[in-house]
Amino acid sequence: MVVYPDMVMLDLVGPSTCLKIAQCDIEFVWKTKTPCMTDAGIPVTPTMTFSECPRNVDVLFVPGGIIGTTACMNDPEVLAFLADCGQHARYVTSVCTGSLVLAAAGLLKGYRSTSLWAVVPLLADMGAIPSMDRVVVDRNRMSGGGVTAGLDFGLTLVAALRDEETARRVQLFLQYAPEPPFHAGMPAGAGPELTAKVLKSREGMDAGAKLAARAAGKRLGVLS
Amino acid sequence: MVVYPDMVMLDLVGPSTCLKIAQCDIEFVWKTKTPCMTDAGIPVTPTMTFSECPRNVDVLFVPGGIIGTTACMNDPEVLAFLADCGQHARYVTSVCTGSLVLAAAGLLKGYRSTSLWAVVPLLADMGAIPSMDRVVVDRNRMSGGGVTAGLDFGLTLVAALRDEETARRVQLFLQYAPEPPFHAGMPAGAGPELTAKVLKSREGMDAGAKLAARAAGKRLGVLS
Repeated sequence: MVVYPDMVMLDLVGPSTCLKIAQCDIEFVWKTKTPCMTDAGIPVTPTMTFSECPRNVDVLFVPGGIIGTTACMNDPEVLAFLADCGQHARYVTSVCTGSLVLAAAGLLKGYRSTSLWAVVPLLADMGAIPSMDRVVVDRNRMSGGGVTAGLDFGLTLVAALRDEETARRVQLFLQYAPEPPFHAGMPAGAGPELTAKVLKSREGMDAGAKLAARAAGKRLGVLS
Repeated sequence: MVVYPDMVMLDLVGPSTCLKIAQCDIEFVWKTKTPCMTDAGIPVTPTMTFSECPRNVDVLFVPGGIIGTTACMNDPEVLAFLADCGQHARYVTSVCTGSLVLAAAGLLKGYRSTSLWAVVPLLADMGAIPSMDRVVVDRNRMSGGGVTAGLDFGLTLVAALRDEETARRVQLFLQYAPEPPFHAGMPAGAGPELTAKVLKSREGMDAGAKLAARAAGKRLGVLS
């Protein structure tokens, strides 16, 4: 699991909790072992550097983030590691805006993929086939939608790595029988006014991601 | 938000992410400022000690945990802090087995409350009125069920502290429109075989919690 400064903690903790209960070994990988601060105010300390990380992992996973995502999309060192590790990994996966980083590394060209609803269209700039589905599996690529989709993604991944019974056991452990008190989890349920407000508050962040996606699209020969 | 060694990270990060987006100030409170290791392999460093924590907080929150919960239920220093802070807090809240700790501190006597499905019955030993509902609000007590119920709980709490529009905005930010790939989040959906397996694997942990609940029930004059 790649970690990075200004990532979203819940993007990491949803899937990692599922994987831990299924007794998978997890390493947090980054350039250095300097703790990476997250939106939750809780830093994550990498357990392995890029150079220490084996390339034939079962799962390469990238969480989403705030401005940290855009920084990764523009960072040759991060993209080179992902491109290399992603080539050999059994599954190449992400939650939320993590898919933008995978796409910027050229790993989603021609693959159906999802991301946070607000930035799904940017995937096309980098050659991915954008989907608004909550969890998207295309060959060995698996992506989850925004933040909380990490739970649906995590269970899907456990079922793929282990089996459905293990995934159902994890679900019962986590009492994952959701009952959202409101129905505003997607723009259709939230309505146009609230959606416009959220997009407005994300404006700066999403503009940065758009520029990074275009630059990556050019590097990858998708955009001219 | 109380933190403690051997707590469950997702119990904390679900609600705290909701509160952060709603621009609430959060402090992580414990006996000392020594980092507390969590199930996720990521430690949380307390930002405040019990003695530094103001008693008139808006929200007192206790996450659940593995054996850490039982340790808290048996720890006079933790229970004294909770009893004192809980007396003055606007909302006294928990997710997962956190409610067992609140109950052991005498804060749920006569209050409808929930917990992780496997330990809900233990609440009665400490004078609470057990409920299997996912989020339970009784006057100023608010509890969520197991682990992932922290999201439903978090949105309910944001609506109470701010307003429904803010909670819906948080929900859209987090794309909380869940689609569990299986239907095993509660014993009814998981079926008796899988439920028995999960209970079996929790046996030692739940036995410890049961002993602690009985001891607390005696201290509180609920059990004789």
